Parts: sequence; structure tokens; C-alpha cells
Amino acid sequence: MTAIEIQGAAAKDAAAKLMTCRTAAKNEALHNIARELAEKKRVILDANAIDMDEARKSGMSAALMDRLALDSGRIDGIVQGVLDVASLPDPIGQVDKLETRPNGLVIGRKTVPLGVIAIIYESRPNVTVDVAALCLKAGNAVILRGGKEAFNSSNAFVEIMREAISKTGLPADSVSLVQDTTRQSVDDILNASKYIDVLIPRGGSGLINHVVANARVPIIETGIGVCHVYVESSADLDMAAKITFNAKCRRPSVCNAAETLLVDSKVANEFLPMAKELLDSKNTELRGCPETIKILGNSVKPATDEDYYAEFLDYILAVKVVNSIDEAIAHIGKYGSMHSEAIITNDYSASHRFLDEVDAAAVYVNASTAFTDGGEFGLGAEIGISTQKMHARGPMGLRELTTSKFIIYGNGQIR
Amino acid sequence: MTAIEIQGAAAKDAAAKLMTCRTAAKNEALHNIARELAEKKRVILDANAIDMDEARKSGMSAALMDRLALDSGRIDGIVQGVLDVASLPDPIGQVDKLETRPNGLVIGRKTVPLGVIAIIYESRPNVTVDVAALCLKAGNAVILRGGKEAFNSSNAFVEIMREAISKTGLPADSVSLVQDTTRQSVDDILNASKYIDVLIPRGGSGLINHVVANARVPIIETGIGVCHVYVESSADLDMAAKITFNAKCRRPSVCNAAETLLVDSKVANEFLPMAKELLDSKNTELRGCPETIKILGNSVKPATDEDYYAEFLDYILAVKVVNSIDEAIAHIGKYGSMHSEAIITNDYSASHRFLDEVDAAAVYVNASTAFTDGGEFGLGAEIGISTQKMHARGPMGLRELTTSKFIIYGNGQIR
Repeated sequence: MTAIEIQGAAAKDAAAKLMTCRTAAKNEALHNIARELAEKKRVILDANAIDMDEARKSGMSAALMDRLALDSGRIDGIVQGVLDVASLPDPIGQVDKLETRPNGLVIGRKTVPLGVIAIIYESRPNVTVDVAALCLKAGNAVILRGGKEAFNSSNAFVEIMREAISKTGLPADSVSLVQDTTRQSVDDILNASKYIDVLIPRGGSGLINHVVANARVPIIETGIGVCHVYVESSADLDMAAKITFNAKCRRPSVCNAAETLLVDSKVANEFLPMAKELLDSKNTELRGCPETIKILGNSVKPATDEDYYAEFLDYILAVKVVNSIDEAIAHIGKYGSMHSEAIITNDYSASHRFLDEVDAAAVYVNASTAFTDGGEFGLGAEIGISTQKMHARGPMGLRELTTSKFIIYGNGQIR
Repeated sequence: MTAIEIQGAAAKDAAAKLMTCRTAAKNEALHNIARELAEKKRVILDANAIDMDEARKSGMSAALMDRLALDSGRIDGIVQGVLDVASLPDPIGQVDKLETRPNGLVIGRKTVPLGVIAIIYESRPNVTVDVAALCLKAGNAVILRGGKEAFNSSNAFVEIMREAISKTGLPADSVSLVQDTTRQSVDDILNASKYIDVLIPRGGSGLINHVVANARVPIIETGIGVCHVYVESSADLDMAAKITFNAKCRRPSVCNAAETLLVDSKVANEFLPMAKELLDSKNTELRGCPETIKILGNSVKPATDEDYYAEFLDYILAVKVVNSIDEAIAHIGKYGSMHSEAIITNDYSASHRFLDEVDAAAVYVNASTAFTDGGEFGLGAEIGISTQKMHARGPMGLRELTTSKFIIYGNGQIR
């Protein structure tokens, strides 16, 4: 057995116990985790200092260093996140309805945990706790495979969580961290279909593509967002400029950020300078079609076909002038990643056509794509944003960490 | 591009049109399919005669020949199946609720088609039509990869369906049959992630395992059923014997058939001879634990560990005497395939423990596992029985052929 298989078998045993665990016991474990994390801040900060030290030596960028860094306030935020998860309704054990069939069988579909969930993620150590809390609340055991850069921080979090869980009588193996941070452990996870019910990879396109190509375990793809804002000819142009700016510049590094602006030719002359003025405040680089360059001048670089496929994750925006809503929808269908798409319009039928015909996880009228987020959508929390169509689509909360089983009450029925 | 990719691209175009297709148009296409199939029985029977002829020459078993054979009555049944699908409610376009968030965004989750569904299946030609009708009703394009043995029959069905669909103005490529019946086309399907949204393999464990190991496209596993009947000590033994017989012998070749009987030691002496008497009427071979052999004598073969893992799909039943419900649940957890599991009991807490602690797609109290079926569960139809936990679990009907998208109505919200 590989180390992952041994860890998987332990997680599977833990999952069998969690499956029938009452809400009160799970919440008690979560409260205990929150308390112990708050009490052991020093241990966590010391571990984080090691990670930061190594990051500094390796020449990590300031932006990545900032993602990795913990301080007392950030740990408070993480602790509050655990308490928030504890206060969410338990997604397990819900039966929508029990239906009596003509033969007298009474049949219902009940929500149950998925079992063992594995998560592969990158450097942000807060993910370690967020994800563990959500999985635990939904009655799942979780195997965490975090990035090498945050290993000491994550390991400190996990050690504290395991102890806190044990103290409430639940199995410590409900949460475990993969100790091997080489690529080998990723590949072992991809093959551990006997122990892992679902794998959620969170990371860049390199990781996602490797996982999709090689996984034998069921996966939920997350995270690639080539999102568009389409300014239709009837749009309130002031609203459109503000939404464009927000969708691009609120946080360019996240998957719900806009990467391409589509503008109807009837309003391009008026709108593009308005948008540019806001985007310039963040020094956003524009890459435009010939019509865009004609309007905005040579400060705009010519866009290549690759630019329209690109997830820049940066202050870069591709721009294209289109002649109709059909052209806009076709562009999104060809270049988009089916993540989040917005139309800015005051036309009733344009709004409905866009909602109906754009095939994406989240489709907006007159709002920023930046809202694609479990918290903003009212799910209470988020384990990731699915970009696939199976099982879950868009922001995933607790409900997406469950499956169902049919329960059937009979009194001697045979077929 | 491979032939599958060309077919996939055509299916993807068709799916884009079906996505916004109204219920009435889909139903008209289904009615047209039913009518044309009924009118062109002769063409179908001639094509089937070619398949039967080749099957005879190749020495196919009588049982398989029977699965392959079509006659006028069977075609009538297939036609009626299409009309039944037309009469089901449309699963697309349903929004459970629209919620207004504190910032005024109005958010709902709407059911939409999955897109392009591929199905790999074996020889029964009726599957070709059943599956196409269900996919079409849920607004999906479907790529059918049927078995070589039924190719001529399936091809005749598909040609008629494509023509019938075209005549109602929907794209013919909504339904297409893979013309290459070698293993190469299976492997091409597994890699066509650009065109195929979901693959449902229906077949034996060889096919399923190959697909799981090699697919880059999202898959829904189906079909392996190592199901148990557990006779608890408080059971009505007459009921238990009838359910055991029904679960094993109604149709041993299907996945919901029982493969192992577990009997509480307190009632084994009385129960096992009662069960054997019924099972003997079908010459069912018993493979038992030492205790079973002690009770029933040497006509029972000793069961090996492999026997308890086996999906016999035949008149063979493994038998084990257990000392407690814990032992029964542990046995099912170890040897079962999480498909369908039944307890026969009159004990309240035993019934609830079994429902709660057995992790399977369908868990029964006092009824035969043979009911695990979309029609019997009231889903209206069935595209297969999922044995995985992601997306769908147990019998899959129209709802399982859909995904969702978030629709968001704003009036200028930025984050």
C-alpha cells in the first residue's frame, strides 16, 4: 500500500463513523477546533514563520508571500470561519418527501455524506481550515494535499484540528494532511479510487489539466474563469463602466474576474472612453480589436486570438466591438470557460436571450461577475467553484458535499 | 480530428440548439419518432435479421440472441416507451426559488441540459431508442456507441430517429450512432472532453473498469450490483423467504439481483430450509459458510472469500450466517458494491440502524432489491443505475440528465 492508501483507509474508517454522526456532535467538534486554534495561535505563527522564512530564501514574490502570511488577525478570521460553518444548517439527513408507490412501498431520497473527499490546493494556509470545517460539517472525512510552501502552517493547523476532533470523541482521521508534498502524492491520490469518493483540485490550469487527464477517482473541476462583460446597445453606460471596472479590477487574480469586454458597435464610441478612464486608474492594459483601437487609439495593443482565450488573472483586459447580441453570445460560447458571464442592458428581450442562451455556471444581468462566490450567493460558505456540469456547477457549498441514498420502507413487497 | 471528434462537434452544435428548445418542440419530435418507428417496422426488422443471422453464425448463446431479437411486439413496446417519455414533465427550465440577497441581487438556480451525452452500451437494440428519447426530452444531444452485435438494428433505429427529428425542425445530429464498433471508438470517446459533457458506460465490469481508468471525460459509473438480503432475527420468515427468492431469481442477470444472503444465527436453522425450498425451484446453486453447510447439508458448496465479492448474474447465491446486525452491516460494507441492500426485520431499531448505517444507493426494509429501477421508484423512466456518489446515485431519470446554472438579476450591483 502507498502512504496515500494507508491514509485513505484510515479516512474511510473515519468517514463510516461520521456518516451517522449527529449534528450536535459535529458542531461540538467544530467549536472545539475554533477554541483550540484560538488558544494555540503561537504554535501556528511559529510554524508559519518557518514557511515564510523558506519562502523569503526561495525568492517568492511579494504577492505570494502575502497569501502565505498569517498573523493574529488572520487567525481570528479563520477561527470565525469555523464558527460560521458550525452555525450553518446540517445538510445531512434531509428527505425532501416520502412518496407512497402504488404497491405500497414508501420511497424517499435522503442526503448523506459523500464519504472521503480529497482536496489538492495551493499555498494559502487558511484553505486548510476552511475546507476541513466544511467537509466535517457535511459528515465527510477529508484528505488535504496542500502546497509545499505552506506545509508547516497547514501541518500545525491539522495537528490542532485532529486533537480537537479527538477530544470530542470523533475520529482524528476525519482530517488528515498528506505529508509528502512531491508530485508523487498527487499521482497516488489520483489512483486511490478504493478510498477516495471525490477529489476537488483547486489550483492553476496546469494542476487541473494533469488531474483531468490522469484521475481514476471522480473529480470536480474548479476554477478556470474566462469571464465576459457584454455591454449591449441599450445599456446604462455609466452602470456598464462601473460594472466593467469592478469585474476586472476588484481582484484580477480570482476566477470570477472579467477577462474580456464585449461592446456593441452602436455605443462603442461613447462607452469605450468611459470604461478606459476607470480602467486607467489601475493601469489596466487593454488589448483590443481593430475597431477598439480606432476608437481608443494606439495605447491599446492589438488583441490576438489567444488573448480572447486567455485567463489573464492580472490587470489586462481584452476588448472586442461586436455588431449584435448574436455575435456576443457566439463569442462567449467559443472563447468562454462557462464560468460567469454578464450582460449590461435595458432591453427586456436581450436580457432574457442572454440568460437563456449563454451556457455558463452563473449568468448575470446588470451586475458584476465578481459576485460568483458561495457567500455572495447565500450558500453560507464555499468549498470551490465548479466549472464542470456534473454533480455541481458554480459555487459549491455544504449541499454539494453530499450525495443521496434512496430509502425504501416495505412490508413484504416482491416484484 | 478523429471521427468521434467530428461527430462530437456536430452533436455540440445540435446541443446548443436543443438547449433553448421548447417543451412542445421536443415532444413533437418524440411523437414523430414514435410514429415513424411504427411505420417503418419492416426496415427495422430487416436490419435486425442481419444482426441475428450474424449472431447465429458466430454461435451466440440463446440468452444473448433473445436480448438481440426484435419482433413486431417488441417494436410496439419501444414505440410506447418513446410516447411515455414524451408524456413526462420537462425537467428543463425549472427554478426552485428566486432569492433576493441583501444587496438586491435576485438569484436562482435553473435546470438546464447537460449538453452532449455519450452512452456506451451493449447488445440490446431497444436501449438505442430508450436512451435517445430520454436525452432528447432533457434537451441533450446524444452520441450512441452500441455493441457490434446490434449495429444494424441500432443503425436502422438511429436513421429513422434522425429523419423524424429533422422533419420537426430540430437538428438531426441531436442523435447519432458511432459507426466504428471497434475498441478504438471507445477510446476516442474517452478522450473527447472538448465535445462530450458526460459519458455513461453501461455494460460489464470489464468495460466499466476500462472507462474509469482511461476517461478524460466526466463519467457516471453504472451497473455493478453485489446486493444482499439480510434476514434479521425478528423477521417474518415466510416474508423473508419470498423476498430472498424474488431478489435472487426474478431476473438473476440484472444488477439489482441479490448475490448474497445473510441470515442471523438465531433463525438460521428454521429459515435456511424454507429459503432453500423456494430457491431449489429454480435450481439455484448455494455457496455457504460452514454454518450454512451444517444446517443445509452437503448439497451446499463451501463459499470462498471471492464468492462474497462476486456478482454472479446467475442462479447462484452465496450464504452466510451472522451473529448480529453489526456483523451483517460490516459484511455489506466490505463485500458490497453500494447498489441495493435489504433487511428483513420486525425490529424498529434494527430497521433504522440498517437504513442509516448501510452506505448504498438504495436501502430497503422488508422489500425485494429487485425494485431498484427508475420506473419502480416513480422517476418515469431510467437511463441507468448509478453506482457512484457524484452527480447521481441509484436509478437515474430525466432529472439526472440535467445540470443547473445560476441566473442573477441585478440593477447595477458591484462588489
